[in-house]
Amino acid sequence: MIDDKVLVVYSGGQDSTTCLFWAKREFKEVYAVSYRYGQKHEIEVEMARKIAEKAGVSFEVMDIPLIGRLGHNSLTDATMVMDQEVPEKGLPNTFVPGRNMFFLSIAAVYARERGIRHLVTGVSQTDYSGYPDCRDAFIKSLNVTLNLAMDYQFVLHTPLMWIDKAQTWELADQLGVLDLVRNETLTCYNGIPGDGCGHCPSCKLRNEGLQKYLAQKAAREKLA
Amino acid sequence: MIDDKVLVVYSGGQDSTTCLFWAKREFKEVYAVSYRYGQKHEIEVEMARKIAEKAGVSFEVMDIPLIGRLGHNSLTDATMVMDQEVPEKGLPNTFVPGRNMFFLSIAAVYARERGIRHLVTGVSQTDYSGYPDCRDAFIKSLNVTLNLAMDYQFVLHTPLMWIDKAQTWELADQLGVLDLVRNETLTCYNGIPGDGCGHCPSCKLRNEGLQKYLAQKAAREKLA
Repeated sequence: MIDDKVLVVYSGGQDSTTCLFWAKREFKEVYAVSYRYGQKHEIEVEMARKIAEKAGVSFEVMDIPLIGRLGHNSLTDATMVMDQEVPEKGLPNTFVPGRNMFFLSIAAVYARERGIRHLVTGVSQTDYSGYPDCRDAFIKSLNVTLNLAMDYQFVLHTPLMWIDKAQTWELADQLGVLDLVRNETLTCYNGIPGDGCGHCPSCKLRNEGLQKYLAQKAAREKLA
Repeated sequence: MIDDKVLVVYSGGQDSTTCLFWAKREFKEVYAVSYRYGQKHEIEVEMARKIAEKAGVSFEVMDIPLIGRLGHNSLTDATMVMDQEVPEKGLPNTFVPGRNMFFLSIAAVYARERGIRHLVTGVSQTDYSGYPDCRDAFIKSLNVTLNLAMDYQFVLHTPLMWIDKAQTWELADQLGVLDLVRNETLTCYNGIPGDGCGHCPSCKLRNEGLQKYLAQKAAREKLA
């Protein structure tokens, strides 16, 4: 365990909830921040709050309405229909330009004010759906930029970067929160908690990963 | 002249006004954005708007109140007295943590939506008052981070990076806007336009630069 404070960028979804409990295992004192940026399903912020309370983690919500309005995207624009698949050319319209950059930069300022150096984000390059701001090169570049911007040594942690969705479920299970993540988090683009609508790209990825992990686990237990 | 569009991060101060007219000379089509972030002297935004209109430049103001509240600083906190000098240890309390990072990142999303690749900022490492986010290494790192975040080739321009305040006045003079910059911009920490209060760190830097440039110009004209 690292004898220091850590701040988790926390959305209340599968990935960042797994990261929240990972941070609890790895660090002495855990903080979490969520953002309201005009997303259609603001319920996710309240779900995040409940889980953070349950986990005994200090939690704060910040409002950044401008971020959702800046770039044209279907996560914040009620008149747009969300892409159900990654298009052959270009980015899915669920991409909110700069979102992770703003989330992490705001978290960094918030952390520095509280003497926190370690930041955690649940981005993953493995199942990254074509979002450039989930890639490892972006996160490493951002880490350097933040340190230069504020003359401070931030350390960005990405526990999910190189694992896929099945392995993320495995990690949640190891952390003792598989049921909590399965039932109390929101990942679905249609705003349905837990197993979700079942047909949006986010539900498909989440549920396929879960089935794969549960099958592996059952096979392992049979062998044992 | 570059046959392309450019976006200037514009505050209505000496430096960014000089950059605005530099951009007009160097690019085909100029856009400008200003921010309201809770600064004490919001009058600077209205001064920016007037100059942008005069320059025939498309102008937009965006609200980011969170940025001013996030980090403790004397530019947005009415209860703090501004540092009059750079302290021996640490940063002056006029430093708004992450400010240039947010200004440029928001400008980048705004630009990308409009097919603009070129961005201009008036930061300078020469007279940088100890602000880490005015340094060349930060800007170059941010350029890479932005390109990775959005899969887009932004180009950050910093025409004032390696020149001092006297040379910035010289550039304004070459661009034919010395009087406009002298009389119609706001740099003073006490919110007084033009030559300002005369005693805050910003006024001192600006006025010493002006006197130095005017003396050099007079000496040169005498020789000619």
